[in-house]
Amino acid sequence: MKVYFVSDGTAITAEVFGQAMLSFFDVAVKQESVPFLSTLDQAHGFCRQLQEEADRGEKTLVFFTISDPKIRAVIESCDSHCYNLFGELLSPIEKALGVPAQPNAQKAHGIKAGVYDCRIDAINYALANDDGASVKNYDEAEIILLGVSRSGKTPTSLYLAMQYGIKAANYPLTEDDFDNVGLPKVLKPHKHKLFGLTINPDRLHEIRTGRMAASKYASSRQCRYELDEVEAIYRQARVPFLNTTFLSVEEISTRIMAEMHLSRNRG
Amino acid sequence: MKVYFVSDGTAITAEVFGQAMLSFFDVAVKQESVPFLSTLDQAHGFCRQLQEEADRGEKTLVFFTISDPKIRAVIESCDSHCYNLFGELLSPIEKALGVPAQPNAQKAHGIKAGVYDCRIDAINYALANDDGASVKNYDEAEIILLGVSRSGKTPTSLYLAMQYGIKAANYPLTEDDFDNVGLPKVLKPHKHKLFGLTINPDRLHEIRTGRMAASKYASSRQCRYELDEVEAIYRQARVPFLNTTFLSVEEISTRIMAEMHLSRNRG
Repeated sequence: MKVYFVSDGTAITAEVFGQAMLSFFDVAVKQESVPFLSTLDQAHGFCRQLQEEADRGEKTLVFFTISDPKIRAVIESCDSHCYNLFGELLSPIEKALGVPAQPNAQKAHGIKAGVYDCRIDAINYALANDDGASVKNYDEAEIILLGVSRSGKTPTSLYLAMQYGIKAANYPLTEDDFDNVGLPKVLKPHKHKLFGLTINPDRLHEIRTGRMAASKYASSRQCRYELDEVEAIYRQARVPFLNTTFLSVEEISTRIMAEMHLSRNRG
Repeated sequence: MKVYFVSDGTAITAEVFGQAMLSFFDVAVKQESVPFLSTLDQAHGFCRQLQEEADRGEKTLVFFTISDPKIRAVIESCDSHCYNLFGELLSPIEKALGVPAQPNAQKAHGIKAGVYDCRIDAINYALANDDGASVKNYDEAEIILLGVSRSGKTPTSLYLAMQYGIKAANYPLTEDDFDNVGLPKVLKPHKHKLFGLTINPDRLHEIRTGRMAASKYASSRQCRYELDEVEAIYRQARVPFLNTTFLSVEEISTRIMAEMHLSRNRG
């Protein structure tokens, strides 16, 4: 079974939605995205391709989001299972909003200068304030992630910046921080912005081994020690924290947004 | 008009899809995501909230993706416009696939260790090979982005890593590279992996001014000069390139994936 995500835009919407649909089903599928399908020729070409695959006995499923009715008609005419992801909901929503849909207004993922700039700013901020690189800009931070090395701070900061335009700094907790009681001094003024990450020792050992095999840094003993210490700091200082072991970057970030009552910056 | 994106997961699917739907309509809406709504209590609480808003005369629209039928029923019972994003398509797809949907299989955005690791690796790679930081790892790169300072290389590399698990390095083209004819020496062995970014001079001037006002670096003259030079290099060396001025990071990345025939790494 082969599944296509087809769109006149990036096909990200078709992909995200289509994959969510497929996740209901316990079937193995080949997936392929077909972005920027925006001419009748391309649409006919795609149909021919589907036809050839059908002739070879290949079953295909097509999730598409296309605003031009003419192009949509071509795709729908294909001899395959094609699902117009917008079709079903468009008219009920027209009724609810009391205004007609305007296909040409359709600019999913199109650039909105304000949003764009604030996301790029946030990404640059995350890079400049990664791994405790600079602690003097913490006033500017909307959130400061804490955690031991390789607990997921950097990808999470970058995802928060990229997806939500959130300025996220991150501070690595190391043995130096364990000596003194409670939070490192530089963090104390920003207590309300702190969020801790933790991870299961075995998983951390695995990750660190991939980076520096057979080192003290990667040893199970060291991983367990560091994680015990940081979790003690989180609890003592009442810093909310999350175990990232079984979570994707998306899940970690969304949970943080919710717990810290952050909302997307639209510039 | 207020729009909610509700889910028992991250609500990213509901958000992406709901925003794509809304982009058909020329109406101003307040948007709010309600992720991890996974208990009946939470569902009833959310309905009460909707009721209060309705009482205040606020119009609300709810896009939701919830797998538990009991919880879904509560949301659908709300006195508001609620759209089950999966409902409409589930049964036709069941027929097409010839297997029944399994709500509990629903793990959209859930972690798949392999994918996770390869994305984190790619992010670390992008960071280590950002802005020409290190040119010795180019063998490992799946793509090397070229462009002048502030033409969008870094966010694009990071997005390619985060979204597709692609190892993207980026190399900043500077005046030093303009002196000699053609491509910088370090890039020549990797010609097939090169992709150029360019941007309109006025936009670049705007961006650089925000970073270093009234500098030669930000001057319109300098921006125009650098962009003329890099575009000449792209053409002379037949490096495919893209003007990022009016594109979002998503669009830039998706176009690059398509043009360079790259496909998502699933680890």
